[in-house]
Amino acid sequence: MEQSLEHKRHTLAHLLAAAVLQKYPHAKLTLGPAVDNGFYYDIDFSAGEAPGDADLKGLQKDMKKLLNKWTEFTHKEVTADEARAAFPGNQFKLELISEIEAKGEPITLYTCGGFTDLCRGGHCEHPNKDINADAFKLDKIAGAYWRGDEKNPMLTRLYGLAFDTTEELEAYETQQAEAKARDHRKLGKELDLFTFSDLVGPGLPLFTPKGTLMRDLIVEKIMQIQAKYGYQKVTIPHITKSDLYKTSGHWEKFGDELFKVKGQSDAEFVMKPMNCPHHTQIFDAQPRSYKELPIRYAETTMVYRDEQAGELIGLSRVRSITQDDGHVFCTVDQIEQEVENIVNVIKEFYTALGMYEDGKFWVSLSVSDPNDPSGRLGDDAVWDKAEGTLEAVAKRLDLPYKRVEGEAAFYGPKIDFMFYDAIGRERQLGTAQLDFVMPSRFGLEYTDSEGQKQTPVMIHRAIAGSLERFMAVMIEHFAGKFPLWLSPVQMAIIPVADAHNAYAAEVAAALRAAAFRVELDSSKDSMGKKIRAAKQAKLPYFIVIGDKEAEARSVTLESRDTEHSETLTLEELLVKLSAEVNV
Amino acid sequence: MEQSLEHKRHTLAHLLAAAVLQKYPHAKLTLGPAVDNGFYYDIDFSAGEAPGDADLKGLQKDMKKLLNKWTEFTHKEVTADEARAAFPGNQFKLELISEIEAKGEPITLYTCGGFTDLCRGGHCEHPNKDINADAFKLDKIAGAYWRGDEKNPMLTRLYGLAFDTTEELEAYETQQAEAKARDHRKLGKELDLFTFSDLVGPGLPLFTPKGTLMRDLIVEKIMQIQAKYGYQKVTIPHITKSDLYKTSGHWEKFGDELFKVKGQSDAEFVMKPMNCPHHTQIFDAQPRSYKELPIRYAETTMVYRDEQAGELIGLSRVRSITQDDGHVFCTVDQIEQEVENIVNVIKEFYTALGMYEDGKFWVSLSVSDPNDPSGRLGDDAVWDKAEGTLEAVAKRLDLPYKRVEGEAAFYGPKIDFMFYDAIGRERQLGTAQLDFVMPSRFGLEYTDSEGQKQTPVMIHRAIAGSLERFMAVMIEHFAGKFPLWLSPVQMAIIPVADAHNAYAAEVAAALRAAAFRVELDSSKDSMGKKIRAAKQAKLPYFIVIGDKEAEARSVTLESRDTEHSETLTLEELLVKLSAEVNV
Repeated sequence: MEQSLEHKRHTLAHLLAAAVLQKYPHAKLTLGPAVDNGFYYDIDFSAGEAPGDADLKGLQKDMKKLLNKWTEFTHKEVTADEARAAFPGNQFKLELISEIEAKGEPITLYTCGGFTDLCRGGHCEHPNKDINADAFKLDKIAGAYWRGDEKNPMLTRLYGLAFDTTEELEAYETQQAEAKARDHRKLGKELDLFTFSDLVGPGLPLFTPKGTLMRDLIVEKIMQIQAKYGYQKVTIPHITKSDLYKTSGHWEKFGDELFKVKGQSDAEFVMKPMNCPHHTQIFDAQPRSYKELPIRYAETTMVYRDEQAGELIGLSRVRSITQDDGHVFCTVDQIEQEVENIVNVIKEFYTALGMYEDGKFWVSLSVSDPNDPSGRLGDDAVWDKAEGTLEAVAKRLDLPYKRVEGEAAFYGPKIDFMFYDAIGRERQLGTAQLDFVMPSRFGLEYTDSEGQKQTPVMIHRAIAGSLERFMAVMIEHFAGKFPLWLSPVQMAIIPVADAHNAYAAEVAAALRAAAFRVELDSSKDSMGKKIRAAKQAKLPYFIVIGDKEAEARSVTLESRDTEHSETLTLEELLVKLSAEVNV
Repeated sequence: MEQSLEHKRHTLAHLLAAAVLQKYPHAKLTLGPAVDNGFYYDIDFSAGEAPGDADLKGLQKDMKKLLNKWTEFTHKEVTADEARAAFPGNQFKLELISEIEAKGEPITLYTCGGFTDLCRGGHCEHPNKDINADAFKLDKIAGAYWRGDEKNPMLTRLYGLAFDTTEELEAYETQQAEAKARDHRKLGKELDLFTFSDLVGPGLPLFTPKGTLMRDLIVEKIMQIQAKYGYQKVTIPHITKSDLYKTSGHWEKFGDELFKVKGQSDAEFVMKPMNCPHHTQIFDAQPRSYKELPIRYAETTMVYRDEQAGELIGLSRVRSITQDDGHVFCTVDQIEQEVENIVNVIKEFYTALGMYEDGKFWVSLSVSDPNDPSGRLGDDAVWDKAEGTLEAVAKRLDLPYKRVEGEAAFYGPKIDFMFYDAIGRERQLGTAQLDFVMPSRFGLEYTDSEGQKQTPVMIHRAIAGSLERFMAVMIEHFAGKFPLWLSPVQMAIIPVADAHNAYAAEVAAALRAAAFRVELDSSKDSMGKKIRAAKQAKLPYFIVIGDKEAEARSVTLESRDTEHSETLTLEELLVKLSAEVNV
């Protein structure tokens, strides 16, 4: 965030505090910083009445009135005792003052419009001129523990939104409202895609038939696209002795996030947080020759990470994470072709989703820090060559890439695809990461054309990333209106009356024979109700079958996305839908 | 085993002991029982020389000589002290005598041919007449701890095979040799289907691309067969809070076999040993109406059981077990149709494997004990009806079934399919189990046509069972020569010389386009070597492409199973192979 906007937000936190004290003189102020979309202030109202949601409008009005008088900030450095005298009986401010005193840092008081707060500074110089009174808004009230510690008293947190312009505030609010309407937790339930069970536990989603179908459609699409590049499926168990991760280094890296498993024996098992170490063991099961390389393994399988319960969010943040994982074992010279293949799979896959379009994505090329190459583990020459190779691929394929120096992992450089969703949020999806470290940790080898033992390079690749997070992104991006190929149910067939059931069944059978996913609604419900149900389920199409259609042996196809309907023969319908599905 | 055969085997254990004492007078006898295929005797040779494999023939000869003189067994009851006097310095026998004494049981000594042993009896009356000297054989030597406890001294166990007739002995030995040649651990490595890693741990197989393909072919075949019966795939995580299994009752049932999982929080997780409890939670995620029933969930997923390391065998006994699991939620009236559907899937699947043939399988119908119906949990009327239903289905479908009374689980009756493999071993594969208990434990409900809440019945079904065990059975049944549809690689295409590579590639492309799995061997190896490699990989077919074929645009197809080869056009080849694959 720009400094000036941060200064405005910080100033508004002061203004909020002044308005609160005016109306709730018993309130004790604590801390009030600027945040990403505005500001908040944590306040202790325990000595009297506390504001509720209904009071936000009034407080906001008061802030605007006060703002007119906030012409200029002044500040002075004071002694700890002087500072204490300014906040009599406020144990929170007194605690802060003692801390600053203990560190030997200067203690400053900032004043504007007659309101004084303990503060380090960073405000607008002339609030009444600098701040647009129509570009901020009090947003909501929540509880927050003093200093985030649940052993401390609960305070009231008042949130405000603040931007430079009214338009930006409105755009932000529109995006928030859109995001709420598209929330995958709400839509996922409405569309019957997944569920959670108290008995199974938080962060462990259960996928219904429709949700599973959607997962399978995603995985099949990726497998189908990458089939021409020679990926082979492998299968591994979800646990391992801890030895595997001690060798790979993940034991240390993941630490507390590892789920430890205990059986009857003394052996220490863990649930896998990654698949690559297992895959190295399949590579290593046979002596390998350069003639076999590249060897490419793919597997869609769950990994497990023990996220804190408070951090779990629907499918976006879970404990059982399905990775569409892939690992290529190759020579340094083969990196270029393999990365190009991976980029092509990403391109084809996101094109099928309508997301691979100019301005709708960018590619982050994470390379090592040229000023500090000590962060690179492994051979410098290999690193230099590989970083050059990645950039050459990005150029040749005309990717909208940015070099991000110092962002490479210690084991190798990488490229990440960043897509903007329908409401402008950036989502990291799709990655190819080079790894010069893991193969040697596991002692992987192949015999080169001279008969010498060599260590292969590994490439970690994901197209969708975690299926759970990907589904959350897709549900929100499409607001549940998935493209035809990705829709678990593609259309409803609605006979107008019982007399049309036979022909409707014939149409359904023909569509199913052509592998379309069709629901035939022969229930006793009214046609209006059936159509509403199809629309509510966000099915791409519905087909109403009445006298006219039965007689002409045609269908009337109505789209979810347009008001337009068209009458087609069954053959025309199949041609149209097949073309749409094979994007 | 028949009593008389058991008596012969027991007698032979005495005879072995007598022969051993004659040659190794320092040996101390311990215990020597009859077993499934013969007998053994555990003997302590620590006071002197011990026999090795090379000595078995001599001992066997000695046994035969002694047998001539073993005309009749005599026995007498003795006091503990008298018994002790018979085994001076043999701490093992002395320990046994003291134990019998402590229990107050009679102590008996059995004597034949001048050899006396502490024994409870159960011999042939006239060994020299009753025992066929050509129907037994000393088999092997192994170590065994006294009473199976590793803290005790290590003894030498001498194994013998024994049957009624020479033919039976020979048949058994042939089966054993066949079993060894077909051992899935050996063939699995040769065919590159799976591997184990010391870092991952015992009982946790890793499936290579070929092994994974075979798993997928099995699962796809089942899914394809059962598609017409309305099964829907679901997806569940591999862990759960222990609450789920405490509710289902598995927490108690599986006890030590459960892998416990510990994260950062206090919550107690376990790796799933079953899938049904998770599936109930998907059923329970929505209110259900009778109109939706039956609801059928299918999922191929791993469960985990902490088998003792010593009990693990290749893929036959593992810790990560992939179940081709299915659960039907239905009304009591729907049981009949659902079980019939499951039997039809089993029939179609095992027919595709050539195993569903008269005399090659039988069906075990496990019902409750009519003399003790107290073992049945739930409604008696439902039990009676369901058992009648299962038998009615078995009769109507003409299954070769046997009622096995008292073998039902406490939660319901079941049917199990028992197949004989190529060398006559019985394998339990395919099952349908009714469950009247779990739905009420989880409080599952549906609304019936009258608007009343009812509890559904659950049917647990598996077609292949555990994929690991199933693959072990298939590898051994087919000795690695899988049917065409189940072969990871279906044929090799072998150009005679470089000049034939182009046409060979064309043939390979045509076969691949028709979804056949083909390996094109354009290496520099000799044709003989290429053909040997194809045969060693047990590929169903190989196709040699030389001048004649390239010119005539034909192929010469050679089969793994016959010496026969035939020349076909490409079109004829595709027709022939398609017919074979669509069994």
